[in-house]
Amino acid sequence: MRVVGIDPGLTRCGVGAVEGAIGKPLRLLGADTVRTTADTDLPQRLVQIERGIDAWLDEHRPDAVAVERVFAQHNVSTVMGTAQASGVALVCAARRNLPVALHTPSEAKAAVTGSGRADKQQVGTMVVRILGLDAPPRPADAADAVALAICHIWRGGAKARVAQAQQDFARKVELARQAHRR
Amino acid sequence: MRVVGIDPGLTRCGVGAVEGAIGKPLRLLGADTVRTTADTDLPQRLVQIERGIDAWLDEHRPDAVAVERVFAQHNVSTVMGTAQASGVALVCAARRNLPVALHTPSEAKAAVTGSGRADKQQVGTMVVRILGLDAPPRPADAADAVALAICHIWRGGAKARVAQAQQDFARKVELARQAHRR
Repeated sequence: MRVVGIDPGLTRCGVGAVEGAIGKPLRLLGADTVRTTADTDLPQRLVQIERGIDAWLDEHRPDAVAVERVFAQHNVSTVMGTAQASGVALVCAARRNLPVALHTPSEAKAAVTGSGRADKQQVGTMVVRILGLDAPPRPADAADAVALAICHIWRGGAKARVAQAQQDFARKVELARQAHRR
Repeated sequence: MRVVGIDPGLTRCGVGAVEGAIGKPLRLLGADTVRTTADTDLPQRLVQIERGIDAWLDEHRPDAVAVERVFAQHNVSTVMGTAQASGVALVCAARRNLPVALHTPSEAKAAVTGSGRADKQQVGTMVVRILGLDAPPRPADAADAVALAICHIWRGGAKARVAQAQQDFARKVELARQAHRR
């Protein structure tokens, strides 16, 4: 499966595309940032972010999109812009009828490093290792977007296996019931 | 001029359209809410808001859009959804190249009641009076959107007059300079 990760931000919105499946090697298709400058009006900045994300989704045609979940208690001076950018990112994905998942920064960090409190360097190191890169994607926002995509593939894989196990179990119960009736 | 006011919200997004000019009677073209339900996924709710606002802008073809400015210190449990909805509203307006202005709730209240701390009832009463209605637009979110549109027409008018006065002054200075040179 191909997943685009988006780390929303008004100044730098991280985007990353990763292809692969759980238990198989993952491959980085690309990582970048959509940038806007503070001297541009807020509405126009959001339109630039929309265009950047749309172009990224057009290019990589993902099966799913993973967006970082924004929390109110984060840096108050930038949180409104981040939330507005995340709203735009969610709309870009959902109006294409792509499945969209929200993962917290801790979930993404835990997925790639094993710890939800890992620092940026540790995330970068593990992204390099997991994807077989020469260096971590730059800037950190692009690396975060890639970590989100990896997180989604691995967590999605886990969820899919749980769903499969539940289906298998239900089927066995049904078969046992049928055998009991005979 | 025709202005669409938008009071962003995830559950009820107020929309209102007002036509008129400063010093002339204002006319209500319509007021409503775009509603989404909590049992819908966040990305789909934002897409529903996008569609609702786009339909509203298609119908009323405004010259400008006024969106309520969201603050981080507001109700923390709903502020993220409100900010995301406001991001969507700003994008809807800006990608049509419509001028978009952000007004604070206090500015809108002060515009219609004279006080930035007026309550919802007072705002409703003044919206009725200003627009010559039989009753205030319901629900309150629709009335707030209408107040934003009124605020924009009156503040925009004031700004336009200041700009005109500055131009007139600059022109007089220039004429005086030219007269002095002769």
